[in-house]
Amino acid sequence: MTSTTGQSNAETIERARRVTAAEDYDIGTRFPSVFVSAQGSWMTDVEGKRILDVTAASGALLLGNQHPRVVEAVSNAVRNHGAVFASTLSPQRIELAERLVERYPAGEKAVFCKTGSEATTTAIRLARAYTGRDLILTSGYHGWHDWQLSYLNMGFDPRTRVANFGYNETALRRFLEEFGSDIAGVIVTPEPAWLDTDYYSNLSSICAEFGVLFIIDEVITALRWGAKGLNGTGGVRADMITVSKGLSNGHALSAVLGRREVIDAYDKAGIAGTYTREVPPMAAALAVLDEIEDGAVHEQCEKMGKLLKDGMRDVLASVGIPAFVTGPNMMFDVVVESESLSWDIYRAAYDFGAYFEDSGTHMVTAAYGEAEVEHALTAFEKGAKQVASKLELAPGDLPDARKLAFPLEAFGGSLKDSEGVLQRIEDTVERIAKRDKDQGNALDPACG
Amino acid sequence: MTSTTGQSNAETIERARRVTAAEDYDIGTRFPSVFVSAQGSWMTDVEGKRILDVTAASGALLLGNQHPRVVEAVSNAVRNHGAVFASTLSPQRIELAERLVERYPAGEKAVFCKTGSEATTTAIRLARAYTGRDLILTSGYHGWHDWQLSYLNMGFDPRTRVANFGYNETALRRFLEEFGSDIAGVIVTPEPAWLDTDYYSNLSSICAEFGVLFIIDEVITALRWGAKGLNGTGGVRADMITVSKGLSNGHALSAVLGRREVIDAYDKAGIAGTYTREVPPMAAALAVLDEIEDGAVHEQCEKMGKLLKDGMRDVLASVGIPAFVTGPNMMFDVVVESESLSWDIYRAAYDFGAYFEDSGTHMVTAAYGEAEVEHALTAFEKGAKQVASKLELAPGDLPDARKLAFPLEAFGGSLKDSEGVLQRIEDTVERIAKRDKDQGNALDPACG
Repeated sequence: MTSTTGQSNAETIERARRVTAAEDYDIGTRFPSVFVSAQGSWMTDVEGKRILDVTAASGALLLGNQHPRVVEAVSNAVRNHGAVFASTLSPQRIELAERLVERYPAGEKAVFCKTGSEATTTAIRLARAYTGRDLILTSGYHGWHDWQLSYLNMGFDPRTRVANFGYNETALRRFLEEFGSDIAGVIVTPEPAWLDTDYYSNLSSICAEFGVLFIIDEVITALRWGAKGLNGTGGVRADMITVSKGLSNGHALSAVLGRREVIDAYDKAGIAGTYTREVPPMAAALAVLDEIEDGAVHEQCEKMGKLLKDGMRDVLASVGIPAFVTGPNMMFDVVVESESLSWDIYRAAYDFGAYFEDSGTHMVTAAYGEAEVEHALTAFEKGAKQVASKLELAPGDLPDARKLAFPLEAFGGSLKDSEGVLQRIEDTVERIAKRDKDQGNALDPACG
Repeated sequence: MTSTTGQSNAETIERARRVTAAEDYDIGTRFPSVFVSAQGSWMTDVEGKRILDVTAASGALLLGNQHPRVVEAVSNAVRNHGAVFASTLSPQRIELAERLVERYPAGEKAVFCKTGSEATTTAIRLARAYTGRDLILTSGYHGWHDWQLSYLNMGFDPRTRVANFGYNETALRRFLEEFGSDIAGVIVTPEPAWLDTDYYSNLSSICAEFGVLFIIDEVITALRWGAKGLNGTGGVRADMITVSKGLSNGHALSAVLGRREVIDAYDKAGIAGTYTREVPPMAAALAVLDEIEDGAVHEQCEKMGKLLKDGMRDVLASVGIPAFVTGPNMMFDVVVESESLSWDIYRAAYDFGAYFEDSGTHMVTAAYGEAEVEHALTAFEKGAKQVASKLELAPGDLPDARKLAFPLEAFGGSLKDSEGVLQRIEDTVERIAKRDKDQGNALDPACG
C-alpha cells in the first residue's frame, strides 16, 4: 500500500526545510524524493514514483522493508506485550543476548543500546572502566558523538583522550610501545573493500601482544561481511564487538558483545538509558535471527550483490569511465575519478529509478532478486552513459593516486608509510606525551 | 495476552545475569520481576503475577502499554509503510516537526534522535556550533554520555568544557559574569518538585541578560509538567528544549526544538544517525499527539496523580513515617528519612503488587483510574506498615536537613548559598579560568 500527501517532492522538501530538514544532511546530500512507503527494496515517493533502494537504507535493512516475519514480530510485540516496562529485563532481551553471544566468538555477554554511535561510545566506556586506563586508539568512522569526530585525521584529541592511528600499523605499534600501559582499548571499523582479514588479524595480534583490548566496530559489518562479520566469518579475535545495522531490519537497536568481565564494567562505567529496554526492536531482531538461521538469506544477498558488483564494473568499462570496484558482495565500493563525478552518475541513475549511495558504497538486501539487479544496472547504465556523453574521457584504469587518496578521504586510512605519515606519527606521539594527566579521568564524575 | 517462559523470576534473572544483565543497573536497583507483557499500567511477570506500574516505565509511557491508538499507528507503519528508507525525510517526520513546533513556544524547527542522552548531546552541540563558543553551563541530569556524568557535583570538567552550577543562581551569575563571552549555552533539567516556574523564569532572564542561549532539558517534563512542560505550560522562555519521554509512548524517540538559526547549525555540528529517520516511533508520536489533543488525557493524569500523591502523604502520616511529599501531580517526590528506608518501603509494596520507583519519584499514566490509585495506595500502605512495624519511629515532620540534603543527592542541587557552596563557586571560577584554551575546540575535527 502506498499513500501520497498530495504534494510534490519539491513542495514536501520545502515544507521539511521550514520545520526539520538540515540543509546538507537531509537535502543537499540526498536525492529529491520523500518516500511514503517501501516494500522489499522498492520505495514509493510522495509523487507515486517507485524507486529501487541500492543503499539498504544506509545499511539498516537486511531483509528489506515490510518483511512479513519482522512485521509480524513487531506487531505482536506492541499488540500483545508492550513497548517498555518498569524493569529493564525482558524475555526478548535475554533470548536475544543468548543468541548473539552464541553467534559471535567475541561474545560472552551482550548489552544493548539504540544507535551505532551509542554502541561504540558504550564500548570505549566499558574498556576504560574495566581497565582503569584512559587513552583510546581508533581507526575509522564510529558515529557522531564528540570523540568520534576526528576520524579522518591521524592525531590526538587531548579532550577526548582518543588517538587516531589511521589504519596504519606503524602508528599503532608506535603508540602502543610508547603508551601501552595507559591505553584502555583499540577500536577499529573494518573497511573490507580495502583491508582484508589478514590485516585485521594482525592488528588483533598486536593488541594481544601489548595486552590491550581489541574492539571491532561491526555496526555495519556484523551481518554484512559474510553472515557473521569480521569476528565470526572473518575469524578475527576481538575482546568486544559492536553490532547494529540489519540486526532489527531498520528498527533502532544496537548491541555491544564482549568478554564477560569487560561487559560487567557496565555499572562502573555509568551507562544507562530508558529505551535500552524497548521490546519491539528486540522482537524484530529475534525474527531476523530466525530468518537468517539457515543461511539462505546471506546466500541470496551474496549472489545478488556479486551480480550487481560485476555488472556495475562492466557498465563503467563499457561506457569508458575509469573505475575501481572492490569489496565483499554485500558492501562493495565503486571508486571513480572524483566525488563530483560519483555524485553526477548516481544523480542521473536516480532519474532512471534507482537510489544509490553517492559515496559509492553499495548494499543489497535479501529482497533483491534478478529483476532488482537488472533494474539497478539499467538505471546505472543509463545514468553513466548520460554523464559520460558530457565528459572528455581518458579511458583506461583509475590512477593509482586516486586509489590511494580514496581511503584517506573516505575513512581516514593512511595506508602507506609515506614521509608525511611518518612525521605525523611522531607529531602525534609528542602530542599524546604532552597530555595533561592532571585533568582527571574522563569517567571520574568528581573531577570538577 | 500474557505468555510465560516456564521459568521463575529468579531463574530468569539468573539466565539474564549470564548473558546480559548488569548487576546494579538491571538487578540490584530493580525489584525481582521479569515482565512479559503490560496492558495499561498493569504488568505481568514470567510467573504470571500482575503488578501495577507506578513508574510509567521510568516516565517513558504517557498512555500506558498497548494503547489502541498507538498500537494501530505502529502496526500500520510497519505493515504499510516500512521502518527506514534511503533518504531521511518522511511525511511522518515533517508532520511531527510541524506539530511539535506548534505545541512548544521554543520551537521554530525540530530535529530528532533516539534517546534522551542523544537529544541533550545534540542540543549542546548545536549551541556550540551556532555560537562558535565552547563552554557549557549545566544543572541536573541529562543522561549517560561523557559530558553528562558530573551532574551531582558543582564544578568544571576541563575535558568536556562543562561547568555545573548546581541550580545555584549565585554560581550561574558568577560564571556568566566571568566567562559570558565564552559560554555557548546554559542547559537545565527542571526539578518541578523543588523549584517553581519563577525560579526557571529567572534563570531564563539571566541568560537573556548575558546574551547566552538558555536550553531546558524537558526529556522528562515536556509532557509531564502540565501538558506542555516548563516551556509551554510553565511559560518559561527558552532558545531550545529537548523532548522525549511519553512522546512515543515508550518507543524510542527524542526531539530537539529551538530557534531556527540554532537548529540550522545541525550540519556544522556534525550530527548524524541512521535511525533518526525511523518511521514507526514517529507514527506513534503522531498518535500520542492526537490522543492528548483535547486535554482529557492530561486531565485524567493530573486527577489520578493528585489522588495518589495525597493518598501517599496520608498513608505515611497515618503509619507515622515522617515524610515530605512535593511536586506536580504527574511527577511528584516522596522523601523519607533515608534512601534505605525508601527502598525498604517500596520493596515491601512490590510484594503487595505495586512497582514504585525506589528513589521516590512517582508517575501515573492515562491508563490510571480510581481502581489503580486504590491498588497502589493499598500496596503502599501495607508495605509502609510492614516497614514501620520494625522501626523505632520518632513521629513528626521530616527534618529540614533532609529536605535540603535530598536535592543535592538526587540532582546536585546546591540550593542555599552556604559558606561551602560559595567557596566551591570561587574554586570553580578559578578552575574554569585555568582551562587550556590551546587544546582546541571540541568540535574541531582537525584538532589532533
